[in-house]
Amino acid sequence: MMPVAVTPGSKAEILAEALPYIRTYRGATVVVKVGGEALDEPRLASMVAEDLALLGLVGIRIVVVHGGGPQVSQAMSAAGIQPRFIGGLRVTDDDAIEVVRRVLVGSINPDLVARLNGAGLQAVGLSGADGPLFVVERALGPGGEDLGHVGSVTSVNAVMLNDLLARGYTPVVATVGPDPNGRPMNVNADPAAGAIAAALDAAKLVYLTNVEGLYRDLGDAGSLVSEMKVSELEGLLPQLSQGMRPKAESAVDALRDGVGKVHILDGRVERALLLEIFTDEGIGTQVMA
Amino acid sequence: MMPVAVTPGSKAEILAEALPYIRTYRGATVVVKVGGEALDEPRLASMVAEDLALLGLVGIRIVVVHGGGPQVSQAMSAAGIQPRFIGGLRVTDDDAIEVVRRVLVGSINPDLVARLNGAGLQAVGLSGADGPLFVVERALGPGGEDLGHVGSVTSVNAVMLNDLLARGYTPVVATVGPDPNGRPMNVNADPAAGAIAAALDAAKLVYLTNVEGLYRDLGDAGSLVSEMKVSELEGLLPQLSQGMRPKAESAVDALRDGVGKVHILDGRVERALLLEIFTDEGIGTQVMA
Amino acid sequence: MMPVAVTPGSKAEILAEALPYIRTYRGATVVVKVGGEALDEPRLASMVAEDLALLGLVGIRIVVVHGGGPQVSQAMSAAGIQPRFIGGLRVTDDDAIEVVRRVLVGSINPDLVARLNGAGLQAVGLSGADGPLFVVERALGPGGEDLGHVGSVTSVNAVMLNDLLARGYTPVVATVGPDPNGRPMNVNADPAAGAIAAALDAAKLVYLTNVEGLYRDLGDAGSLVSEMKVSELEGLLPQLSQGMRPKAESAVDALRDGVGKVHILDGRVERALLLEIFTDEGIGTQVMA
Amino acid sequence: MMPVAVTPGSKAEILAEALPYIRTYRGATVVVKVGGEALDEPRLASMVAEDLALLGLVGIRIVVVHGGGPQVSQAMSAAGIQPRFIGGLRVTDDDAIEVVRRVLVGSINPDLVARLNGAGLQAVGLSGADGPLFVVERALGPGGEDLGHVGSVTSVNAVMLNDLLARGYTPVVATVGPDPNGRPMNVNADPAAGAIAAALDAAKLVYLTNVEGLYRDLGDAGSLVSEMKVSELEGLLPQLSQGMRPKAESAVDALRDGVGKVHILDGRVERALLLEIFTDEGIGTQVMA
Amino acid sequence: MMPVAVTPGSKAEILAEALPYIRTYRGATVVVKVGGEALDEPRLASMVAEDLALLGLVGIRIVVVHGGGPQVSQAMSAAGIQPRFIGGLRVTDDDAIEVVRRVLVGSINPDLVARLNGAGLQAVGLSGADGPLFVVERALGPGGEDLGHVGSVTSVNAVMLNDLLARGYTPVVATVGPDPNGRPMNVNADPAAGAIAAALDAAKLVYLTNVEGLYRDLGDAGSLVSEMKVSELEGLLPQLSQGMRPKAESAVDALRDGVGKVHILDGRVERALLLEIFTDEGIGTQVMA
Amino acid sequence: MMPVAVTPGSKAEILAEALPYIRTYRGATVVVKVGGEALDEPRLASMVAEDLALLGLVGIRIVVVHGGGPQVSQAMSAAGIQPRFIGGLRVTDDDAIEVVRRVLVGSINPDLVARLNGAGLQAVGLSGADGPLFVVERALGPGGEDLGHVGSVTSVNAVMLNDLLARGYTPVVATVGPDPNGRPMNVNADPAAGAIAAALDAAKLVYLTNVEGLYRDLGDAGSLVSEMKVSELEGLLPQLSQGMRPKAESAVDALRDGVGKVHILDGRVERALLLEIFTDEGIGTQVMA
Repeated sequence: MMPVAVTPGSKAEILAEALPYIRTYRGATVVVKVGGEALDEPRLASMVAEDLALLGLVGIRIVVVHGGGPQVSQAMSAAGIQPRFIGGLRVTDDDAIEVVRRVLVGSINPDLVARLNGAGLQAVGLSGADGPLFVVERALGPGGEDLGHVGSVTSVNAVMLNDLLARGYTPVVATVGPDPNGRPMNVNADPAAGAIAAALDAAKLVYLTNVEGLYRDLGDAGSLVSEMKVSELEGLLPQLSQGMRPKAESAVDALRDGVGKVHILDGRVERALLLEIFTDEGIGTQVMA
Repeated sequence: MMPVAVTPGSKAEILAEALPYIRTYRGATVVVKVGGEALDEPRLASMVAEDLALLGLVGIRIVVVHGGGPQVSQAMSAAGIQPRFIGGLRVTDDDAIEVVRRVLVGSINPDLVARLNGAGLQAVGLSGADGPLFVVERALGPGGEDLGHVGSVTSVNAVMLNDLLARGYTPVVATVGPDPNGRPMNVNADPAAGAIAAALDAAKLVYLTNVEGLYRDLGDAGSLVSEMKVSELEGLLPQLSQGMRPKAESAVDALRDGVGKVHILDGRVERALLLEIFTDEGIGTQVMA
Repeated sequence: MMPVAVTPGSKAEILAEALPYIRTYRGATVVVKVGGEALDEPRLASMVAEDLALLGLVGIRIVVVHGGGPQVSQAMSAAGIQPRFIGGLRVTDDDAIEVVRRVLVGSINPDLVARLNGAGLQAVGLSGADGPLFVVERALGPGGEDLGHVGSVTSVNAVMLNDLLARGYTPVVATVGPDPNGRPMNVNADPAAGAIAAALDAAKLVYLTNVEGLYRDLGDAGSLVSEMKVSELEGLLPQLSQGMRPKAESAVDALRDGVGKVHILDGRVERALLLEIFTDEGIGTQVMA
Repeated sequence: MMPVAVTPGSKAEILAEALPYIRTYRGATVVVKVGGEALDEPRLASMVAEDLALLGLVGIRIVVVHGGGPQVSQAMSAAGIQPRFIGGLRVTDDDAIEVVRRVLVGSINPDLVARLNGAGLQAVGLSGADGPLFVVERALGPGGEDLGHVGSVTSVNAVMLNDLLARGYTPVVATVGPDPNGRPMNVNADPAAGAIAAALDAAKLVYLTNVEGLYRDLGDAGSLVSEMKVSELEGLLPQLSQGMRPKAESAVDALRDGVGKVHILDGRVERALLLEIFTDEGIGTQVMA
Repeated sequence: MMPVAVTPGSKAEILAEALPYIRTYRGATVVVKVGGEALDEPRLASMVAEDLALLGLVGIRIVVVHGGGPQVSQAMSAAGIQPRFIGGLRVTDDDAIEVVRRVLVGSINPDLVARLNGAGLQAVGLSGADGPLFVVERALGPGGEDLGHVGSVTSVNAVMLNDLLARGYTPVVATVGPDPNGRPMNVNADPAAGAIAAALDAAKLVYLTNVEGLYRDLGDAGSLVSEMKVSELEGLLPQLSQGMRPKAESAVDALRDGVGKVHILDGRVERALLLEIFTDEGIGTQVMA
Repeated sequence: MMPVAVTPGSKAEILAEALPYIRTYRGATVVVKVGGEALDEPRLASMVAEDLALLGLVGIRIVVVHGGGPQVSQAMSAAGIQPRFIGGLRVTDDDAIEVVRRVLVGSINPDLVARLNGAGLQAVGLSGADGPLFVVERALGPGGEDLGHVGSVTSVNAVMLNDLLARGYTPVVATVGPDPNGRPMNVNADPAAGAIAAALDAAKLVYLTNVEGLYRDLGDAGSLVSEMKVSELEGLLPQLSQGMRPKAESAVDALRDGVGKVHILDGRVERALLLEIFTDEGIGTQVMA
């Protein structure tokens, strides 16, 4: 996008326009789930990090949850493991979980943390093991298939997140966590972000995705919904794409559990986060309780 | 000034550009002296209040010090008292001090406080009597003339200001304060702001004035200085105008006492504060230690 | 009053007699409404300030609310505005509210603050605008008359008062405050004191007046009541004088809202506050829930 | 002493006179050593307790140190042990130390604590063992005689006293404490009070005794000194009585170690403490650094 | 008991075995009542002190309550007072209460405090008078007999105990306390310990006694119970010995009031406390709610 | 090692013997560097985790720093990268650093964190990126060779570690950290542990290694040193093995920078940490400042 030539005066004017939004969200907790795609491209990753930092620096309590699907698939291929999915969930055997956590916890997470710190935050990378931050129970596939080291979050350590937020740190969460026996399990970042948002009574849960938002009619680009009620979203669930389903289901759960609003934004749009939070021209889809 | 038509994307871009400045000044203490002229025009007053609120909401610790010369002169005339100045200081007899504090403490201060609260802060109006916030010693005119209830600040209660700042309140100071016997004295707001900035070890002291800045050569509009050292400012002192002299002298004192930078800005320029603090296009004059 | 000649020993004995009362009220919140009359005479004003300071220094959490009727009327006359009352409420047009707040906020309040600080407290002057401390809704006259900038308190910012009290400051409140649009409104100090006492769950609300107390029979000086129940006071309301009615109604409301006791004292009696709180010889009228 | 008949008004006047003294000493630390004689007579003991409570309730940080000589001597006689002194120090063998601590720690201390609590404080009894509060090294007689369980304080646990004072408790100290091996030792309360006052940087150390004060000329009742410098007191040391010597020496040490003033008062005078601290008519002798 | 020869390795192994128990009880409140018998023999007293210190140093919040029956009886005999009991309660006239508190408060308490401090704690001795810690109401004998200064605890100052625990001090309580008039009363330490445990919501209340535990059949050594329910203990009450009855009744009350478990241990067994709390081989009797 | 049969009594006795050591090190900061070898064998890793947890639970402030050399070499081989070392430093090109941090941060670190949490701590995994915890500057080989992503710690964020310790979390540090441009760098864990210990003013720095300790004469097993001065260690530096040199140099630096003692222990000995810290039979080599 070409920045238009703006005079200093109009720059300041625009800053001033952000005032009511800063006022509204200052001190609120916002959980942002960033998809692996956004982090795979340096320019996008850098921009998302700057936007998150800006939110943090104006007083919003940010918790970042990230995925890393493409990076994991690539690393598995490099290691000679064929990625396999059942019902949208990655089948994760003993070798695969090792690849998963090395990529998510050892590579993507510290990269994002470093970007956020470079942008002015004091970010701290966490995975479920730390504290522990969350505990995972093993999940089966839709037909009862054994998926290996795959599970869903059963409890979140909100005290630990609030401890860190209260002292000015920004938690950045990779969604690998221990089962009750301490064995690492792979967790889909979409519902994990929802569980964390619910545990923190977040004002907003934002999904930064690689689609423009939710469509009423999947094949019809003109049917993008800019705002809907949670009940309407529930009705749409059956017809959603494989990738959108977990986000939408997690959105429904989070809204039912007390999260204020869920936003589904296109992370590839420049400054999508800032546009959605600090200007009247919201983009993407916003779902309300 | 005409706001140019900007796309949502460029709006967000501009917000993002403010990030490095927010990062730099977050948590820093900035004392802003607002002249009576700026407060006399509702549109300007409202804009200055919004700009101050924005600074406060992004984490800058703001202390506002205000004057009220035109409003005082007008009230004195209405009360049949002829304003009189010696060496730039208002001669203030018993009747006059009553008018001065009624206008500054009873009218201008609560108006500014209400504007700031309307813009999202928790502002609290103070004058020297509160606490007391500062103590005043009687001053004489340049030729030893008796000026009546006129004095200069001899000590500032920084503990009280920090108490309020730490609990999230924004102090707004009218510069009338008690002499050691508790009698109210009129204090020039320019050096009072400097004394407060020095007592707080402020990162910045900003004078919002009704001139564009400091000129190397008073008659030559082209000699506006955008940046100078304190030593250079000291050399300019003899040739400055009556109105600029107290600001410049206070700036020199404040810089010598540990304040980081002093800015002299034109408060009539829209968003002058935001431009100076949040963009690269600084306006006015900046003096460094 | 002639101080009797007392020996050092009896002095100490009297101090010791205050012990049980200090024990009882230490840490309790007491709201004292001081009438404008008491503050109009320097000797009385100084004595009231010393008494308030003594209460504060022995550990009572004091909030002072002051009026200023005579001073306002005088300033209005000086400005050529004829004071006018409907149903005991001052009709306050745009010019009048400016006079009202200049006198209350700009003159009486800092004078009282300075006296209290001189007596050993760390008093801080406040009006409704600060914080804001309270919000006002416009009131009409008994017959629906437009009274201009006149209203009643609809909410009190108890957090702010408790913040100040907890850090050792004594709030001194002038009862001018903003309506929801930020415009200044004149509020009768009697019900304002009651609203503040109720918001703070005060142990006592004291009205320092210029009458000896409440009379059962208005014309009969012998019918002064030293103690009554709130229900009895409600019965007396119709027959009270114009000046006493707002105090009595506010007393009833405050007692219904949880304030422990209301005292109506003669502020012209030397040391009335100390006598009432620290000796067995209570004076004036005490109303209990 | 006969309390004179005073009117309510003069009572309040006297209370008001205490204001400047309350202002001065509020928050200051005052160590008061109470002799065993004062505690042996219920009426005196009760009065001293009330005076101490009054000091505590107006915000003075009180630490009480008590003796118990007469009570110990009486208990030793009852147990068939002949009290014996060398150089003013009680010879204390194994049986005697048991009597000493039972009387001081088990009887006098809880009685005084109960009286202070009855008067409104939250007093907590301590001896050197608690914490430990202080450590004692064995002392010899002036001619090198073995005195048994007798020693002097070598270090004071100021942190513990400040912990208690900060949470609103009033420490009441019996001067029996452990030697480095944990064996109980008898310590003269006069120097122990001095050591405690020095460790706390007390503003005042007060000795409540059974004499009127210090005399320049021991035999001459007219030579009572109301005020002297520490250097003058040092000159007087050789001629002081056996009972006064330890107080005077401890006073010199305490003043050299930073205590503000030492007062030697007649505890048999009613309200001696209040008179000295809250009125201009100081009694007894005051020694300044 | 002969310590067996163990290698360094097995030592460390045993330390490591304590880990799960440390984990479980860290931060929990445990009230330990130590009988006078255990404190009467230096070797036992020293060992109990070390065990208590170890519990304290690994993070258990310990409150110690001690008796002193044998020592009191001996001191009364020495003073020519014949010990007399009605229904297990010591008849305590004016002379006797003086002996009781001198022994408990002045001798046993500071000895135990000194031992605990020597073992690494910061113990602080308390009796009911301090604060006051607890208030006592006079009790009568089973047949309504006047027992003199004998009573039972009616309220416990848990705030004060928690204040001390929170700042790292270990309270050591002698069970003499004031009646509502401040007169000292003798309280059986068994129910006093129960009342304190209940007031603190303790996880455990431990009685260190001089018997092996509770027997189902008093005459049959083989009927020692290692574990029972509170309901079963209630059934056993009528057949218990005079010495065990108060412990058992207090145990029932404490368990009904929310204490987690009550342990009755033989304090003469070496390291009984450590064995019970840190190893699987619990000894004595454990009663559960 | 065969646990000898010990009676419950001797178990308790051994626990009691640990008391003086618990007393000494409670509240002290101890940095423990655990080598990758110890973590590579589940039984050893589990035992080390339990020992670290025991230290943490008795009140020692533990910071764990871990290596992972064998695991990294194995992963590099699996990825077809030939491990290469210059002067003991691993040459780390772009591909290699990715392997290094995936293994250290994504695999070894969360495994150790999970073990510690399973043993009762609240461990939190960190790498240099978090906060950032430390900043790294690029290092060259001994002959100036380019080593790629290899560096040494130039500053440690002690505030962040103390924040976590103060709130009860145990930091577990993987020694990969950002250079000033945010690029990940591999840091030898031995000097990193030393730098962290120095920044925290640690009482102890412990190296858990796979040798018995330091030898005076490298070839002579009988020359194991149990205790030496830092000056003696400096003398030994030239003759130390490649693996021991960084530990020894870091030990010298840490002791010069204020760390109390450095211990070099054989992590393969069962309970080595407990033996060294809690018993008299210290093992390995201890170096004192």
